[in-house]
Amino acid sequence: MAVYTQVDDDALSAFVGEYAVGKLTACKGIAEGVENTNYLIGTSKGRYFLTLYEKRVAPEDLPFFLGLMEHLARRGIACPTPIHGRDGRALRELAGRPAAMVTFIDGLSVMRPTQRHCAHLGEALAALHLAGRDFSIQRKNALGLEGWRRLEKACRRKADTVERGLADEIRRELDDLARHWPDDLPAGVIHADLFPDNVLFLGDKVSGLIDFYFACNDLIAYDVAICLNAWCFEPDGSLNTTKARAYLAGYLKKRKMGPDERAALPILARGAALRFLMTRLYDWLHPAPGALVRPKDPREYLKRLRFHRGVKGIGAYGLE
Amino acid sequence: MAVYTQVDDDALSAFVGEYAVGKLTACKGIAEGVENTNYLIGTSKGRYFLTLYEKRVAPEDLPFFLGLMEHLARRGIACPTPIHGRDGRALRELAGRPAAMVTFIDGLSVMRPTQRHCAHLGEALAALHLAGRDFSIQRKNALGLEGWRRLEKACRRKADTVERGLADEIRRELDDLARHWPDDLPAGVIHADLFPDNVLFLGDKVSGLIDFYFACNDLIAYDVAICLNAWCFEPDGSLNTTKARAYLAGYLKKRKMGPDERAALPILARGAALRFLMTRLYDWLHPAPGALVRPKDPREYLKRLRFHRGVKGIGAYGLE
Repeated sequence: MAVYTQVDDDALSAFVGEYAVGKLTACKGIAEGVENTNYLIGTSKGRYFLTLYEKRVAPEDLPFFLGLMEHLARRGIACPTPIHGRDGRALRELAGRPAAMVTFIDGLSVMRPTQRHCAHLGEALAALHLAGRDFSIQRKNALGLEGWRRLEKACRRKADTVERGLADEIRRELDDLARHWPDDLPAGVIHADLFPDNVLFLGDKVSGLIDFYFACNDLIAYDVAICLNAWCFEPDGSLNTTKARAYLAGYLKKRKMGPDERAALPILARGAALRFLMTRLYDWLHPAPGALVRPKDPREYLKRLRFHRGVKGIGAYGLE
Repeated sequence: MAVYTQVDDDALSAFVGEYAVGKLTACKGIAEGVENTNYLIGTSKGRYFLTLYEKRVAPEDLPFFLGLMEHLARRGIACPTPIHGRDGRALRELAGRPAAMVTFIDGLSVMRPTQRHCAHLGEALAALHLAGRDFSIQRKNALGLEGWRRLEKACRRKADTVERGLADEIRRELDDLARHWPDDLPAGVIHADLFPDNVLFLGDKVSGLIDFYFACNDLIAYDVAICLNAWCFEPDGSLNTTKARAYLAGYLKKRKMGPDERAALPILARGAALRFLMTRLYDWLHPAPGALVRPKDPREYLKRLRFHRGVKGIGAYGLE
């Protein structure tokens, strides 16, 4: 990660003392996540996650993120729930940063999801979409079409160092998506980053969804497309149709998709591929000094983009 | 840290399955420690620490480190204890690295030790020295006089970029220490790196000593000097005599020091200061690419070195 805040033990004890979570017994910095500083906290009552929000998270978005986790948890979604202090506040400050403590969720993320993982992921994503319907705060997707245009500009000059012709291909794709992007599909709260890293399993059952810091309001089927890209492709860049079918069937078991949503999947999947192609390209071209995590190869998403561009209909994803 | 190994979830499950520790329920990479990859493991039976030994730890030293922790734990020292697999082995392999699982110890390290922390640290250090007496494996201190000579050579050319005259000062100090270094003091197992990072407290009581990866056989009073430097100086570089007196009194409550050991403290403390001055200087001049932890300022230890050089007798440390 680019920034990692060391917390003073006295400040930490004082912070934890603001909550009715028992006595602080352990604190370990977690080497996960690229955006924020995370600590796993042990107390006499249990385990908690403490997050210090670093500068890539806008403070004005925190009520949305924390409110959403609380809303979803209350509706039965297994996700971290913000702990309220004795004064009722869930969001406070530590080491000069906005900070919040949430419940700890047992489970492991899977590196190579199986068909069964994909099926359960589909159900969990649909449940999240249903539970998010009556959440009252709104947050615009910062990585929607406008955000893509900014990314395209920021990467244009150096994109061809990754692959010749890439700058042109991205520009053409972006123009095409802008012309044909659907605007009349059901919208709602989406996770927007539900990669295998962010889904915990116990066995092949989902035990928790985590990391809501890209969540926003957008087309619900766009979230379906993001996960299709993130879960159902093989390392060689080909779609695993069995996994795609299992994933979408799992999703449809919990939430129906209209014919318009289904028909839009190929273009939404192109958009989802372009979004991750460009953020990965940006990180690749602008590596954070001292980053713990090696930037991911953007070309994985170029392959997905090209796949979806060649798709004739939703049969390619195992849908009818 | 310079290297951080990502462990595949399937490989991890298989690894944990080799131990009778219950079902794996969580795994979080820990952002502590510069040398190794550490994971905090949750199972249905409790919490454990999993360490993957990266290349800065010599595999041939692992039986010493693991054996020592087990030996000390059996003698009542609160320290991580290696867990043996169902096949009896404590040391195995994961992700191509030597790996071991140890017990998790509750507690927090203190950033600004108080006099009471120092007193308890003294007692804990003495208890460690006593418990280590009958440990049968030997390990030479790689950062003794010979190691210092190698470090001096490796830093000589660039030392003056940190402070003018530093290369000369180090060389003269090293020559002087080599001439006067005691060789007839009681020797035994020492921790050799018992900084506040490596001591866990619950309240002001020591709950655990951790990170034995510099432990070795050397002069016992040299370990006393290392902790004097690490615990009893103020951020401005001056000795806090109250803390030093409390620390040494705590130590002497558990283990007597002969007149020869006491008299040698100033020179041992100079050696301990030089050792950390030089390793910090080396890390400062050769920062690890992608290191998570900013190198520590070597000049802190230059100040300590100069302090001890000016000391006339052990009265300066609150001893008689």
